[in-house]
Amino acid sequence: MPQREQSSWIRSPPGGRQDAGENLPITVSETMPRARDFFLLGQLPVGPHGAMTDVAGVRIGHASLRSGVLRTGVTAVLPHGRNLYRERVTAACAVLNGYGKSIGLMQLEELGTIETPILITSTLNVPRAADALISYLLTQDDTIGVAETVNPVVLECFDGYLSDARARAVGEREVSEAIRSASGGRVAEGCVGAGVGMRCQGFKSGIGTSSRLAGQTSFTVGVLAVPNFGFPGDLVIAGVPVGRELATAGQPSERGSCIFVVATDAPLASVDLRRMAWRCFLGMARTGAISGHTSGDLAVVFATDPRQERQDRAVMNALFRATVEASEEAILNALFMAETTEGRDGHVMPALPIPEVVMILRRHGVAVRGVGQGN
Amino acid sequence: MPQREQSSWIRSPPGGRQDAGENLPITVSETMPRARDFFLLGQLPVGPHGAMTDVAGVRIGHASLRSGVLRTGVTAVLPHGRNLYRERVTAACAVLNGYGKSIGLMQLEELGTIETPILITSTLNVPRAADALISYLLTQDDTIGVAETVNPVVLECFDGYLSDARARAVGEREVSEAIRSASGGRVAEGCVGAGVGMRCQGFKSGIGTSSRLAGQTSFTVGVLAVPNFGFPGDLVIAGVPVGRELATAGQPSERGSCIFVVATDAPLASVDLRRMAWRCFLGMARTGAISGHTSGDLAVVFATDPRQERQDRAVMNALFRATVEASEEAILNALFMAETTEGRDGHVMPALPIPEVVMILRRHGVAVRGVGQGN
Amino acid sequence: MPQREQSSWIRSPPGGRQDAGENLPITVSETMPRARDFFLLGQLPVGPHGAMTDVAGVRIGHASLRSGVLRTGVTAVLPHGRNLYRERVTAACAVLNGYGKSIGLMQLEELGTIETPILITSTLNVPRAADALISYLLTQDDTIGVAETVNPVVLECFDGYLSDARARAVGEREVSEAIRSASGGRVAEGCVGAGVGMRCQGFKSGIGTSSRLAGQTSFTVGVLAVPNFGFPGDLVIAGVPVGRELATAGQPSERGSCIFVVATDAPLASVDLRRMAWRCFLGMARTGAISGHTSGDLAVVFATDPRQERQDRAVMNALFRATVEASEEAILNALFMAETTEGRDGHVMPALPIPEVVMILRRHGVAVRGVGQGN
Amino acid sequence: MPQREQSSWIRSPPGGRQDAGENLPITVSETMPRARDFFLLGQLPVGPHGAMTDVAGVRIGHASLRSGVLRTGVTAVLPHGRNLYRERVTAACAVLNGYGKSIGLMQLEELGTIETPILITSTLNVPRAADALISYLLTQDDTIGVAETVNPVVLECFDGYLSDARARAVGEREVSEAIRSASGGRVAEGCVGAGVGMRCQGFKSGIGTSSRLAGQTSFTVGVLAVPNFGFPGDLVIAGVPVGRELATAGQPSERGSCIFVVATDAPLASVDLRRMAWRCFLGMARTGAISGHTSGDLAVVFATDPRQERQDRAVMNALFRATVEASEEAILNALFMAETTEGRDGHVMPALPIPEVVMILRRHGVAVRGVGQGN
Repeated sequence: MPQREQSSWIRSPPGGRQDAGENLPITVSETMPRARDFFLLGQLPVGPHGAMTDVAGVRIGHASLRSGVLRTGVTAVLPHGRNLYRERVTAACAVLNGYGKSIGLMQLEELGTIETPILITSTLNVPRAADALISYLLTQDDTIGVAETVNPVVLECFDGYLSDARARAVGEREVSEAIRSASGGRVAEGCVGAGVGMRCQGFKSGIGTSSRLAGQTSFTVGVLAVPNFGFPGDLVIAGVPVGRELATAGQPSERGSCIFVVATDAPLASVDLRRMAWRCFLGMARTGAISGHTSGDLAVVFATDPRQERQDRAVMNALFRATVEASEEAILNALFMAETTEGRDGHVMPALPIPEVVMILRRHGVAVRGVGQGN
Repeated sequence: MPQREQSSWIRSPPGGRQDAGENLPITVSETMPRARDFFLLGQLPVGPHGAMTDVAGVRIGHASLRSGVLRTGVTAVLPHGRNLYRERVTAACAVLNGYGKSIGLMQLEELGTIETPILITSTLNVPRAADALISYLLTQDDTIGVAETVNPVVLECFDGYLSDARARAVGEREVSEAIRSASGGRVAEGCVGAGVGMRCQGFKSGIGTSSRLAGQTSFTVGVLAVPNFGFPGDLVIAGVPVGRELATAGQPSERGSCIFVVATDAPLASVDLRRMAWRCFLGMARTGAISGHTSGDLAVVFATDPRQERQDRAVMNALFRATVEASEEAILNALFMAETTEGRDGHVMPALPIPEVVMILRRHGVAVRGVGQGN
Repeated sequence: MPQREQSSWIRSPPGGRQDAGENLPITVSETMPRARDFFLLGQLPVGPHGAMTDVAGVRIGHASLRSGVLRTGVTAVLPHGRNLYRERVTAACAVLNGYGKSIGLMQLEELGTIETPILITSTLNVPRAADALISYLLTQDDTIGVAETVNPVVLECFDGYLSDARARAVGEREVSEAIRSASGGRVAEGCVGAGVGMRCQGFKSGIGTSSRLAGQTSFTVGVLAVPNFGFPGDLVIAGVPVGRELATAGQPSERGSCIFVVATDAPLASVDLRRMAWRCFLGMARTGAISGHTSGDLAVVFATDPRQERQDRAVMNALFRATVEASEEAILNALFMAETTEGRDGHVMPALPIPEVVMILRRHGVAVRGVGQGN
Repeated sequence: MPQREQSSWIRSPPGGRQDAGENLPITVSETMPRARDFFLLGQLPVGPHGAMTDVAGVRIGHASLRSGVLRTGVTAVLPHGRNLYRERVTAACAVLNGYGKSIGLMQLEELGTIETPILITSTLNVPRAADALISYLLTQDDTIGVAETVNPVVLECFDGYLSDARARAVGEREVSEAIRSASGGRVAEGCVGAGVGMRCQGFKSGIGTSSRLAGQTSFTVGVLAVPNFGFPGDLVIAGVPVGRELATAGQPSERGSCIFVVATDAPLASVDLRRMAWRCFLGMARTGAISGHTSGDLAVVFATDPRQERQDRAVMNALFRATVEASEEAILNALFMAETTEGRDGHVMPALPIPEVVMILRRHGVAVRGVGQGN
């Protein structure tokens, strides 16, 4: 897969889906194991890469740690390629369940802006990643820490089932890698960056992304999700409660979270971006989420266009629908693209058994494509 | 149906489902046309009535107006049978999309209490219903308006497609009827009370309710929903996008809202009740909702137990799951129990074509019961 | 006073300050008994009328009821003279203590807009005033109640100590009068409109207004306050705890609220208007407020310029300072301009004894002007 | 001063107020230079130490860095002396202006609890202090980072005018010192801990604390403040705008913040603790604050009693008044107890010139005690 080859910063590149492939009754090619390759969700057209990077200028980078007892990493989202501290983007957030340690949201809400790359990492890594982000920003701008401060935005899920979270292994090196390697175009998904150690609804999860073109409008909505929530048995795919029919015996229950980062090129004020943020959770709900007690479910949305304009009902509805659809699909991509992973203390999180899922979906009347038919 | 017979205050009692019954390839008896009679949603056991009134002490009443150009009404929820103004209940709310005119939420949030019956009616009726509720309360308590004030809670959806909303026909008589007729046990659903003129995802809607027993705990969660949202074609039932396969041509799009009122006997502080409130929208999402621009989607939750105690993770998760499941089912009950309704200017909202829905569900592998098999 | 002469809609025009004048050791002319005539608060220049109407286009009207046991009324604020429902203004609000029954704030927050005149009245009048406002709007726009709804904004304080609040005497006639009589220029203050029955910190209160020019910027901030809060003895004027030295024996304690409506011509998004709204309470604090348990303290801010633009630090600081200063002064104007009022059941609220206050202020080193020296 | 002698962990112990003392027309003894020693604020009685530690069990510790270009530090507040992670305290917060980088508030709000010591430090130190706090907690509890996560609460103001903030000098050593040295009884104020580099309204500031007994109730309210806000010239003391009369030429303007931590032994749910939190800003307003654009003004409140009970109006009013009064006094104590400090690049922040302040206050009729008269 091209997007993985260019990812020289991934220390332990994932090995593709060969193992899973052995059992497949249908052919899953290297280049198209995403949810969209099997079935369509929603009504709106998807962008060219089916990724957050379909919003022009948005770049994503990862650094992954997969050695010893570490299964962790960090992902960076850059709203544009210029100096964010000087060219802030309009932003907002929504918190469905605030059991979480993400930072930077208070000022984001107060001003309606983001002024740093957005990082996502594991819970206990947040302070070190934030400190590393400050270090990076100090090299970008001499006024920070002298006459000004800076508001690092670092979001998190907890990967402590697979990784030695107490080690807090993400620091300046990893943050720097994630930021410097960020690029547009096709995006690595699954077990990379912040997704290396994540799990969702009883299966291995990771990074997922998707996009939608917002109906009649010319606007694009892109979503990056890090789903790390849920209870074995709860998984719903394309409306089908597949989790009930898949073996998830012995899997640990809810300790997790779900992080969404949403980009749009629609020129919106923060009051309307916040409304988009809330719609991520409607997409999440369609994958079987109940947003458990210890789930930190939040969404950050930014606009790449600095103008703040009101949109009419039809445009807002299209943006909302795009957000719901892309959020659901981003979660499923995170599951479809993740590999079975063994971590600390012999803990193993199995990949979603795609062939079985496909069979269940077919049995439930979902139109599953013959893989290889293209997009 | 027993619950309808006792409802002498319903001016135009709905005529049952005979018409719909004519076309049914499966037999739908008078007494069990609810969603649950066809399929099971979720994992948790349902309460004895499958209704909000499974929470002990909770009572529900309706007043319906179905004459001339009026298709409207009011529904009252009474957390207990005593003087609410003197024995307030702990409460909280959540607002997913605040395009709405519901009143009383500011003080509800500030104090974490409700001190009046909760009314639900049509948008432009809110002030008159609130004024009528004050009139009612003035008769209950001599201090109100002298040394004290009172905070009426009145929630709303807009029924102006079927009803002459500009008439603002709900007043003291209707509010009084709804409150005085409130009772426990089985609850009228569909086209009664606030539900007379509502519509959802392209079909006639109304009042729906459901309940869940919260897993290992001894607690019950009951939900009353007034779903009045959505876009023709969007309806999802039991995970199946039935809306795509049902004819909804010519139906008007989104102007609506979704109101949830949730009761529980768990002894919770308002901080935790608010968390339950948010979960209603996860249930709503599973029916295909995107929470459109003009949707007033909100949930009010109250606890009948005055103690404020922390619950552990397992209990909170059970309460959250119960809320999600009961919310989804309450919405579907509102659709399953509503009849085709003709309103002002020849506007007609068709009932959900249950036989077709059943066939679609079966085609999608949903286990649909032979009706008559019981609960 | 000119502004009172044109107020033919005031049923019981206040009789001026002749009585109070008898005791004055300094001359208080008819035309300048406002706080500003005695001392200056803050640093910023005041607008030409020292009123909310210094923001171009803003109009204020009142209807007052002062017969029998009624001491109540309604005040209307119109952000501009055109159809508000079609030309909404950007808006936001802040709630310091939400023990209150004001309505319309949920949608105001969701959309960041106001689409009706803003009414202020007594607590139990809110539903009738809201219904009257809807009646008014139905005459303005045929789509309301057919394809659309409307969000009336009605704010409130409780005047039940002086007035028979249970009578709920404000209806269509009063609301219509308040809206139709609204005008710019000098504004009636004290015991008019919503202010007829209000009291604050042990003294008769009413309507007060003030304005500030926001420093180096070209922007104006205007505040209308209805202070109705507090405890006898707590009053602070120009930093001096005058309440401790004034006789307030026998006065009833806190049941009140403080409503602020703020206008600005700065082109701001709602995220920044909300920040301005919070600053009202800093001005309120300087008058001795503790925001008691039963105080409904809230602020609504709107911008008359439809553009949504970010402002730099200096501009925001100037707008914040303007809001703090104008809020404090508006509260004091409400007290300075109110007359001793006898209401229901022989309840009497004394006017602030201005001569005594002046002496106390002078004793505390406040530079009190010789009245008549002009602005 | 006893509380300073026991503070062996303060690296550069402040040198007392001898210099300031030279100019005093009235004698300021070592042991009583606090605001309360000069004048009384408010109506309520103060606790035995006039400090947050008057709430039984609360402990405060500091670590200070005053070498080279560093004028910074960290302060720790411990709600009780047991394992906080296992015995969480009920808590809430309020944010007046969210331009700030404090962390931990999202989960605090979601659950209404605090589970770690509360740290306060300089802005760019927050991540390192949070990481150090996690290190400390990992030694306290084996489950953290394995099956559980932990939510560090770290609050901040910016001391970059006096200190080299880019150095981010607060780490594990300082955090450990602050926590381990925490004690009850009399509390160090002024230039210690997080207060070493702070400034307020044009003068050197630091740590301040105060307390109130909540009227007729048996409850105590204690406030710790780190005031670091404002504009030269704005300072108000005891209602007197002393800032206008004191020389503050050349002082830099607003970059600051104000942090409040409030403790009470009243058994309250988080919904009511949040209401207390808001009252801190009313106290702040009385010192001349306008809460500028770049001010991070927030308050965290916790209850040492685990019971969650509703209190009646009189009790809530007493708790609110106590919070307002103690907040104002805590800010003034921070100013009264701070010494003139020279920091990086020759920047100097002068101490509040107490003798001049006393003269101004007397000229404005404030009853200033002859110092030495005792409490």
